Parts: sequence; C-alpha cells; structure tokens
Amino acid sequence: MSKPKVFEKPTGVKDYLPDAVGKLRAIERSVLDCMEGWGYRQIMTPSMEYYDTVGVASSTSDKKLFKLLNNRGTTLVLRSDMTAPIARVVSSMLKEETFPIRLSYHSNVFRAFEEEAGREAEFYQTGVELVGDASPEADAEVVALSIASLKAAGVDSFKIAMGHVGFLNGLFEETLDGRPEDQLALKGYLLNRDYVGYRLLISELDLTDAVRKELEGILRLRGGLEVCEQALNLSPNPQAEASIRHLCQVWEVLQDYGVCDDVSIDLTMIGDFSYYTGMTFEGYAADLGFPVVSGGRYDNLLQQFGRPAPATGFALKTTRILEVSTRGGEQEKRARVLVLYRTEERREALEFAAYAREKVNVMVETRRIVGDDAACEQEKARYTAEGGYQEVVLIGALKGERV
Amino acid sequence: MSKPKVFEKPTGVKDYLPDAVGKLRAIERSVLDCMEGWGYRQIMTPSMEYYDTVGVASSTSDKKLFKLLNNRGTTLVLRSDMTAPIARVVSSMLKEETFPIRLSYHSNVFRAFEEEAGREAEFYQTGVELVGDASPEADAEVVALSIASLKAAGVDSFKIAMGHVGFLNGLFEETLDGRPEDQLALKGYLLNRDYVGYRLLISELDLTDAVRKELEGILRLRGGLEVCEQALNLSPNPQAEASIRHLCQVWEVLQDYGVCDDVSIDLTMIGDFSYYTGMTFEGYAADLGFPVVSGGRYDNLLQQFGRPAPATGFALKTTRILEVSTRGGEQEKRARVLVLYRTEERREALEFAAYAREKVNVMVETRRIVGDDAACEQEKARYTAEGGYQEVVLIGALKGERV
Repeated sequence: MSKPKVFEKPTGVKDYLPDAVGKLRAIERSVLDCMEGWGYRQIMTPSMEYYDTVGVASSTSDKKLFKLLNNRGTTLVLRSDMTAPIARVVSSMLKEETFPIRLSYHSNVFRAFEEEAGREAEFYQTGVELVGDASPEADAEVVALSIASLKAAGVDSFKIAMGHVGFLNGLFEETLDGRPEDQLALKGYLLNRDYVGYRLLISELDLTDAVRKELEGILRLRGGLEVCEQALNLSPNPQAEASIRHLCQVWEVLQDYGVCDDVSIDLTMIGDFSYYTGMTFEGYAADLGFPVVSGGRYDNLLQQFGRPAPATGFALKTTRILEVSTRGGEQEKRARVLVLYRTEERREALEFAAYAREKVNVMVETRRIVGDDAACEQEKARYTAEGGYQEVVLIGALKGERV
Repeated sequence: MSKPKVFEKPTGVKDYLPDAVGKLRAIERSVLDCMEGWGYRQIMTPSMEYYDTVGVASSTSDKKLFKLLNNRGTTLVLRSDMTAPIARVVSSMLKEETFPIRLSYHSNVFRAFEEEAGREAEFYQTGVELVGDASPEADAEVVALSIASLKAAGVDSFKIAMGHVGFLNGLFEETLDGRPEDQLALKGYLLNRDYVGYRLLISELDLTDAVRKELEGILRLRGGLEVCEQALNLSPNPQAEASIRHLCQVWEVLQDYGVCDDVSIDLTMIGDFSYYTGMTFEGYAADLGFPVVSGGRYDNLLQQFGRPAPATGFALKTTRILEVSTRGGEQEKRARVLVLYRTEERREALEFAAYAREKVNVMVETRRIVGDDAACEQEKARYTAEGGYQEVVLIGALKGERV
C-alpha cells in the first residue's frame, strides 16, 4: 500500500464546500420543518452501534458494514441506516411511550463498498419512522409525507412508484413453489429493473405455459389503480390478493390526500431492504437515474429489539437531492460586506459591523489596513475589484464623512 | 466478552430524544447564523480520514483515535477534531482561494477513551477557523466571536480566560533549560489546574531561590490587563516578552469590541492541543466544571498539508452546552394538535390538517377512529385527557357542525 498524499481523503467520501453546505442545510431545515408539521419529532442516535445488535438487524449485507473494535474488544459498526437504531430506541428509551410513535432524523450513514463501484461510503439521509400503526392510513401518510418532503426539498419534478412485497412473494410462492433459487434469480432481475434479463430467464426456465404467462404478466403491472384489478385477475394466491387489497386501500387514502397524480403503482417493484414486509415505494426525480427517496413497511424489525410492533417509514437521499434541488440558491444567501478600517477607527468599525450583522442581517468581515487616505481608497478599490463582496465599506477614511 | 443485550448501545455514546434534539438544533442554528454574520461560511468534511494524514496531524494521542480499515487495507480514523480536516481542505480544494479564509462547522468528533473515564466517545462541536491572518485583530476576532457564539447558544453566564503558550514556553526554557522532564511535569499540573501539585513539585525540585520565586509567580498571573505588566517584570525571556506584548495588543482590540468584561488573562493556561503556538483561550460557564469553548492560534499546522499559513480558531462544546443553555425551551416549540376523523370525513380531515400545518404553523397528527357520534366524543375526551396535545379536534362528528 502506498502512503496517501497529505491532502487526500479516503475513497468514497466527500468534502462539502460552503455553497454546497448552504444548499444542503437549506434542504435539511426545510424538510425537517415539514416533517415536524406532520407530528414527527427528531431524534439523534450514535454513529457507532454494536455489531451484534443494530449491525445484524440492519438490512445491509455484512461486507458492506464498516466495522471497528472498541477498547473492550467488542465489534462496533458505523450505522448503515437509521431504521434499526430507531427500532432500538423505541424499544428502550421510548418503551413507555404509547403507539403510534412518530420520529424523524437527519443523519449520515455509512456503507463499505466494492472498490470499483464508485459509490459513496458516507452519505446523508433525512427520513421518518411511524411505529405502532398497521393501517393503510399509516402507509398512505408516509407516502404523502414523502411527497411533501420532496417538495420542501426543492425537488420540483418527481414520480413515486408504489408496490407491495407480499404480492410478488405470494405469486412466486404459488408459481415457483419449492424453487427458491429461481425465485431469487427472478427477484434479482426485478430489483435491478432488468426486465430483459427477467424475460430471458423465464424463457429458459422449465415452466408451464400458464405459469410463464403469469410471470410475464407481472411486467405489465405498472400504472394507475387499474393495475390492482389486473393483478387480482393474474393470481389467485391469497397472500398476493391480500397485498393488492391493502394497496387499494392505501391508494384510496392517497386520493383523499390529493396526491395520486404524483404516484403510480408498480407491482414489479421490490424494496432494496430485506426487512420490508408490505407496501414499499421509491421516488424518482426527473433526470436522475437513481431513487431520491425510498421507503416501506417493516412489521418484523421491532420484535428483534423486544417490542413487537408494525412500522412504516422512508428516507430521502439528501445528498443526492443536492444535484436536483432548487433550494439554497443565490437569492437565499446573505449579502457579504467587507469593512476596512485604520487603527484609529477600529472601535467605530467594529461597532458598525456589529450593527450591520444584527440589524441588516448581512455577513460582515472586518479588516485593518494602513496608509493615508489615498492609500486606503486604493485598498478599497482593490477589494471591490476582487469581487466576492456586495459592498466594501471604508470607515472614516474621508475626513468628516460617516458611513 | 459477553454479547451485548439487544437494546444496548456502545459505552460513551448517546441517544438524543426529541426534547434534547430540539434544544441542540436551536443552539446549532443560532450559533451557525451568528458565525455566518461574521463572515464564516460552513463546510462539511467526511467522518473518516486517512490515519497517515489527518490522523497524525490531529493533536489527539494515538490511543484515543478510533481506527478502522477500508477495503484496500488502508488505516482510517474517525475524525477527532475539525481543525486538521479543515487544514487539509484549505490546502487542497480551497488552495486557489486568497487568505484570509473564514470557515465554520458543526460536527460530531470521536475519541476512543479509557474504559473507566466515563467520557464521551462521540460529541458535537460548533466552531470556526480563521486561516491566513497572523494579526492580533484575528486573535481578538475569534475571542469576540466565541463570546457572541456563547450568547447565541443561550449561555447566559460565562467567563473567558486567555493566555499564550509562548509565555510559559519562554519562561520554562529560561528557568529550566535542559530539564525537559521537569518542564513537562510542571506543564502537566498547570494543564489540569492542579496548583497544589504544581507548588509541591517546585518545592521538591532542585532550584535556586530566584527561579523558584519566578515559577511560583506564574500562579499569580491571573486577572485583568495588569497581569501583563506583572508578567513583563517576572521574566526577561524574549519569547515570553514577545508573547505578552502580543496578548496586550489582543486585549486592546477586545476593548474596541467592548467585551473585556467577559475576559480575563490567565498566563497559567496551557491549551489542551499540542498544535497551539500562540494565544489560547477557554470559556467556562457558571456551574460547569469543564470548558464550554476552547481555542487558540496554531501557526504550524497548515504547513503539514503543504500550504504554510498562520491560523486561529475555536470550538464550542455544543453537547456540553445543552446542559446550561436557555435555548429551545417550551416557548420555542410548536403546538401539537391531534385531528380525529371517521372514514367518511377523511378527506375533510386531511385538508384541515394540511391547512393548519401551513397556515397556523402547528404540528398536526391525524388519526382515523370508528364508532357513532357518542363513541367518537368519548375518544376525543380520552385523547384530550392523555395530554401531550394542546388541542384535540374531532372532524364533523357533531352533525352540521364544522371546525
């Protein structure tokens, strides 16, 4: 291994310079305010968790967890999501609080990654968890809130796709009973949205014509509410049917929220988290090839922490949203003012700066300069020409004149 | 090693529940806004850095660094402060930007710790770095800004103690030339503010009466500007004298800022960071036994990253400030409203909730209930009695009545 150069940082992590941070902070603030309006209160959990508890309960594969040892020799992980830590908190510090519990977070998460993948090892998520409510209203609430959050984040153009893991599980159980490898392979193609590969595998598998037709039919199950009707006709499996009926109810609530124009049903969708048990959804922004939000129902996670409860939630991919957000632009920035002074006028300059910061809400930098009036005027001209400041003020340089 | 219980988290790290997070966020927001007003723009750097670069440059002792390996087998550290990462960024991504550069941050930092110490392994700091300005005005600016930041953080009662590492270094060099172990031992007592131990060691060391008197005299060098005069009389060492003269100039600028009532000079003070080269300061809040802010000048750190430059800055201990801050109390919280509805009035209820969130700026939770008018009124009474909500609204339950 060659030694890293002094100014290098590890692969997969980023520095955010002031303009990007300003934007990220504007998004964060606006999204958290929106979530709070819906009754979600923010919590914070540690960056490090025990491997044996939160590490194992998270849906991140073992090799993608960053591991380290503490001084006692116990294995820790850097959190890979916030859902498992929040399940831990709900089951411990919040165990006396009655359901439903609504929590929000804004947090960095960590994923160790394949060297060549070029994916981020540390990124930010802003999300919510609604714990202790199994109703379609709860699922619809998090979908509707994800839409409100994307708007608050300044994502102007997006589409939510909503599915249900129970539908595919039921349909595969029925059509490919006792063939778990085939099920897994087909789900893998759906997860990667590789419909060509999916069709090819179906054509190669030893299947009856009816089953092949049913499996191919899945790919057409994308669109509006009519998709649910088609799905009910496609499969007689009880789990698949119950899943579709739940999804219909969620859709009805979303109609009452008035957000169905932003949502489509996509029954080919498989959430990328192994703990999802019900409705799942993803949001895509125009021009971005990856989801900017993902979420779903996970009814089995809480019991791993000793307090069984249904739960549903989502996470915005905040650092990805930076690329498409219209928030935090020039018009939201404070004006920059430079105050120049000579030692004799220092007190006056510092008082003026304090006044301008407080009353005019501008950014004020101060700088002592030396020289006679003419030299000071030249300095002022130089800083003005340099740019970067909306105004350069020279305190008391022209006798008798006050700013 | 016994396996951790499912709900446990690692030693030395914390969960922050909504009330604490509300307070922490109010402090963070207010302090960063204050810093921005002074021209400091926020940056973010990764949690993980290379051990060989930032890890080594940080002032944290090796055994207190959390280390981990990336997939390439290179040793990484969890950042132990933000000063070294910012030095890296100033020397790389910001290398074209002209000095002075003013940057701020709000960030968690990590320290592996002795098991029995009960100290935090992860905590938050909010701070600034002013890079490329060696003047007394720059030192005074960060001291004055630390005072403004403490006030913005809701710390109502505090005192800043300001010293200079050059004074003690010069005085020790002169009085204990060639006795580095004795110097180190005495500095250790001063760092821990163990003046009894300091006196005892002086009485035990083999010293002339004059030197003993000089070393004991240091302990009296705490107070106002008069301390500088006393210090000049105490030691003829040129480095000590130059340090005191710089400190006098900083004090003069602080007078122009009008903040000298909050500051005292304490020449016994040794910054707890090995990279400090000049003025150092600490701030203590009433009733807290540890500093809530610390800072100082570090003129040799930047050259380690290939862009030599003087620099000065400070960090607020934000999570410690939580305990004493008056910010983020009940009066800063939004009112919580619960909206109850039956399925028939769901659309009306969701529209009402959306209106109240946007126009009245309250937190609104919604909940579907079932039953006739009387049952619904009972539910409303039950939720009202439960507390936690400023208002419980029942949509359309009483016929003909509208909320």
